[in-house]
Amino acid sequence: MLNVVQIGSVGHYAYALTTMRKYKLSFVGVCYPHEADNRVRAERNFARFGFEPPVYDDWREMLETLKPDIAIVNTVMAYNCEIARTALSMGISVFCEKPLATTLSELATLEETYAISQARIPEGGRRPVLCAMFGIDYLPHFETAYRYVKSGALGDIRLANAQKSYRMGNREAFYSDRAEYGGTIPWVAIHAIEWVIRIGGLRPVSVSACASTACNAGNGTMEASTLCLFACEGGRMASVSADVMRPATAPTHDDDRLRLVGSRGILEVRGGRVYVIDGGGEHELTLAETETELFEEMVMEMLGRGTCRVSAEDAFLATRAALTARDAADGGAPLVIV
Amino acid sequence: MLNVVQIGSVGHYAYALTTMRKYKLSFVGVCYPHEADNRVRAERNFARFGFEPPVYDDWREMLETLKPDIAIVNTVMAYNCEIARTALSMGISVFCEKPLATTLSELATLEETYAISQARIPEGGRRPVLCAMFGIDYLPHFETAYRYVKSGALGDIRLANAQKSYRMGNREAFYSDRAEYGGTIPWVAIHAIEWVIRIGGLRPVSVSACASTACNAGNGTMEASTLCLFACEGGRMASVSADVMRPATAPTHDDDRLRLVGSRGILEVRGGRVYVIDGGGEHELTLAETETELFEEMVMEMLGRGTCRVSAEDAFLATRAALTARDAADGGAPLVIV
Repeated sequence: MLNVVQIGSVGHYAYALTTMRKYKLSFVGVCYPHEADNRVRAERNFARFGFEPPVYDDWREMLETLKPDIAIVNTVMAYNCEIARTALSMGISVFCEKPLATTLSELATLEETYAISQARIPEGGRRPVLCAMFGIDYLPHFETAYRYVKSGALGDIRLANAQKSYRMGNREAFYSDRAEYGGTIPWVAIHAIEWVIRIGGLRPVSVSACASTACNAGNGTMEASTLCLFACEGGRMASVSADVMRPATAPTHDDDRLRLVGSRGILEVRGGRVYVIDGGGEHELTLAETETELFEEMVMEMLGRGTCRVSAEDAFLATRAALTARDAADGGAPLVIV
Repeated sequence: MLNVVQIGSVGHYAYALTTMRKYKLSFVGVCYPHEADNRVRAERNFARFGFEPPVYDDWREMLETLKPDIAIVNTVMAYNCEIARTALSMGISVFCEKPLATTLSELATLEETYAISQARIPEGGRRPVLCAMFGIDYLPHFETAYRYVKSGALGDIRLANAQKSYRMGNREAFYSDRAEYGGTIPWVAIHAIEWVIRIGGLRPVSVSACASTACNAGNGTMEASTLCLFACEGGRMASVSADVMRPATAPTHDDDRLRLVGSRGILEVRGGRVYVIDGGGEHELTLAETETELFEEMVMEMLGRGTCRVSAEDAFLATRAALTARDAADGGAPLVIV
């Protein structure tokens, strides 16, 4: 069936392992291009699922030699874009860590490569799929919010407030280096930006943002607190607050929130639950069961049996909005999202 | 004892009635300068507290004739500033509806008049007091938050998210007219801005903002959704979300929230309760009892027995930040708060 390789092990590759076993995909090669890609830990995780992929020193050589169907791309943030672009240009489907790039110019080259890959009919008849690791969308509370919004129950959504709050924990060295890390807005806030876009249905057109490295526990240029204000199409608007200042004593690692204010009601995701106020008053929604996992959905799309809920287009827009927001924070002036 | 007059009856003058009765202040005159100042309703409210103040046609004449100690100023938003300024210039203390002005230039004249009133030693030895109607600060949950923050338990507060959400309800005609109303940011968001300043201790230095009249139930130029991003001193930051889109079916009129992210913990006011995560893990604070009411505190300050918890300076800064935010939203570009 499908052959899979993995490049890097810094990110959320574990999303793929269950599906790879379930569908008996062949794990034909792995490469650890960055010193932060912890081979020992990755191999321990692979072994739990019965995988023992051969190790390659050079990811390009691995792609050219093996010509896999799928490349799982999740080394350090700054290097994923080039790898994803190379794979796509070879017609290989890519399961890629977010952000899809750490600079807007790199992102543009990836978008161009993706567009080309979709425009031509490839050998074997299968266009490559690009799926970004927005796995949080698959949690029951976000899927529940998505379905409720798409039912039209909130009417016209005018205002969104989204939040990510993480514990700092111990961060590896590359988080301290903007050139490798990309920043907290593209790494953390991007999830909340993606909810605003995909769940809220808002289209950001410009952004003002603030970010600060204060209280970052010695992690170099890593921002510990960030805030973005997105002006969206049709006079709509969204705030995205993302911090890495959640106390170590907090009961959970993260505190994900989304509040959507519509013409017919208000929805709020908080603490893994979904609350709405609509024509029926204030009530809590029963959580949806999500049958399909992220990587599984990608495989299904490749097999022509459905589509990933987070499209490549949404992933591009979320990445573009996040990178523009980071640049706006850096420059201290609002920027248009082009 | 102290003589009190009231000008206008659109706002929160009711804050004063209990204290006026408790301290046996003399309610010596009232004036209804705007057609929206509902005399019948006001007189019904006064009567409940045993007051039947004489009615004057002209507020200037009333101030000059009666030379009261206190003027309660709460006619339609756009006219309060001139009245407050006139009273202060006569050495009369002012209990004024927020915002203190609806334009930055008007606000500047009020600040100047106030500064002059404080600089000279007045006849009778009593400097006039200016107290703005930020009554929400007196609610137990906000007082609890204030005391907790001032204890230092949150450490250095780097990030604030504040929210006002109101039901639209039936709004009188002047809400439809920007020239009279001033806007939803100065009228509604200003409370959340004031919490950020006074409770959070942040000092806003510039602001980006969005506002939209969509879904305003036919209320002319009244904004139904607004968002502000404040860059604050020392690289700190605050978002303020204010909307008038809370469904009529909601269990309460308002949904006030404040989240403060500090170097040592996170505090959140929500649903009239106060939650913190600090060194002791996640817990809820016991609500403080607030002994003194807003107007009572003003009277005490006039008698030299304490100070209002919301100082004139904080009220000026909150108004300046709100008006600047509104202007930033109007102009579609960030503005420095001067």
